[in-house]
Amino acid sequence: MRPILTLMATDLFGGDSKASLHAAMAVEVFHNFTLLHDDIMDDAPLRRGKQTVHEKWDVNTAILSGDVMMIKAYGFLMEYKGEVYRALMEVFNQTAIEVCEGQQMDVDFETRSDVSLEEYVEMIKLKTSVLVACALKMGAVIAGASNKDADLIYDFGLNLGLAFQLQDDYLDAFGNPETFGKQVGGDIIENKKTYLYIIAEQRANDGQRADLRDLFSISNAGYDSKIEQVKSIFVDTGADRAILDEIHRYTDKALGVLEHLNLPSESLSNLKDFAHYLMNRSS
Amino acid sequence: MRPILTLMATDLFGGDSKASLHAAMAVEVFHNFTLLHDDIMDDAPLRRGKQTVHEKWDVNTAILSGDVMMIKAYGFLMEYKGEVYRALMEVFNQTAIEVCEGQQMDVDFETRSDVSLEEYVEMIKLKTSVLVACALKMGAVIAGASNKDADLIYDFGLNLGLAFQLQDDYLDAFGNPETFGKQVGGDIIENKKTYLYIIAEQRANDGQRADLRDLFSISNAGYDSKIEQVKSIFVDTGADRAILDEIHRYTDKALGVLEHLNLPSESLSNLKDFAHYLMNRSS
Repeated sequence: MRPILTLMATDLFGGDSKASLHAAMAVEVFHNFTLLHDDIMDDAPLRRGKQTVHEKWDVNTAILSGDVMMIKAYGFLMEYKGEVYRALMEVFNQTAIEVCEGQQMDVDFETRSDVSLEEYVEMIKLKTSVLVACALKMGAVIAGASNKDADLIYDFGLNLGLAFQLQDDYLDAFGNPETFGKQVGGDIIENKKTYLYIIAEQRANDGQRADLRDLFSISNAGYDSKIEQVKSIFVDTGADRAILDEIHRYTDKALGVLEHLNLPSESLSNLKDFAHYLMNRSS
Repeated sequence: MRPILTLMATDLFGGDSKASLHAAMAVEVFHNFTLLHDDIMDDAPLRRGKQTVHEKWDVNTAILSGDVMMIKAYGFLMEYKGEVYRALMEVFNQTAIEVCEGQQMDVDFETRSDVSLEEYVEMIKLKTSVLVACALKMGAVIAGASNKDADLIYDFGLNLGLAFQLQDDYLDAFGNPETFGKQVGGDIIENKKTYLYIIAEQRANDGQRADLRDLFSISNAGYDSKIEQVKSIFVDTGADRAILDEIHRYTDKALGVLEHLNLPSESLSNLKDFAHYLMNRSS
């Protein structure tokens, strides 16, 4: 998705999307570098249904391949010249640091039991949304959009990215198994403390909280009723509606940003359609 | 040493070395990023007499800190503008890729028994010398040196870097224990196939070769006479003189490059003194 956002943004602001191919590649290769290193840190066996690099080869290969991919990402940006190059480097370099900070927060959260909603949202913002926002802004910069428009499309991406990531959390528990594509309840089986868990824990009464914590101490993936029991608590505490409210709030914020963009109404409605499409997905 | 080379080169070509502080920091932070990741790959417990980052904290921290350091290195270079910035990025990005390639060769060599001298020299060139050369070239670029001079100082650094690294191999076996600073024979204890080993193995007769291979299959660090026996074979096969010849050859090549530099003779003689100082070190 990320590289397409770059091409789309260039097109949106009146540029030739071919001109942003190298920036799109930088975004995609950078993203894949983070996946290689994150998968080592998470000890993940699979990625997109295939063995992860450190499983198929070894940890050293995954570290070093990731390093080179990050360097190559910077190399792709060198295709641009002058002030465009500098503007791309500024947003890209800042984003790269933030993505690493988000990953560090994610790692830290695994051993913490007192993560607040604000901290969780900050983590997914840094780990995920800033790169979506960066992808869009880079496309705008290459098209020669004004600084104001480039910043607005960045904000659009940031809020849409947050909505998208929260929807991931929601669908993992409440998605339709027929269309979701992944196993519904994967986060629950892995005891991942997503937004749903944090908000349920906050709103739970003492009995629900004790049940939730007990259920999240089960590491046996074969415990069949765990997913249903956890989902019941999510529903009983209103966590499911609370996250949907947040998803809508961030989607509306993203759409609100668009009103300030200096773009023809047809382009704007394409962007709105895109946002609605993303937010009505079932997988 | 590397950041000082950058400052020195700026001064040498008539610039203000303060102007190259950020480039010097980029080089040093990049170098330390490679140390963090290399130490994970080599499973090294110590670096500069202290616990390595992955030992003191954990592997994840070392991976992620290294990643951020690489990104920060790129960030330091953003202090420069226009064509200077582009020229710095070009040499830095190319060098960064080469350093990773050198590390991959080094990792690969650990499980190979047929590494040639040419491959070994290519490995140390990529892993070590190119960054020395890059450090010098960046200093020259910032001072506004001509492309020709910037390339010449790069070549000087490349050859001096090779001489320096080969001298490391030599001193590890034949350094004076009183002045060497590290344990003499460290590479031999670890069965590291340095230039000395490769050339000795090539020049050995059948008996010497069998002895050398036997000695390099000993992983017991307490086997006292191993170092002396290996050093005898290095001497008997002439490997010690052969590596000294190579060190001189690369030093002379570095000094020869200087003749083509467009610099006042006093500056040139400072550079020569520096090269001689490096090559006459005992630690």
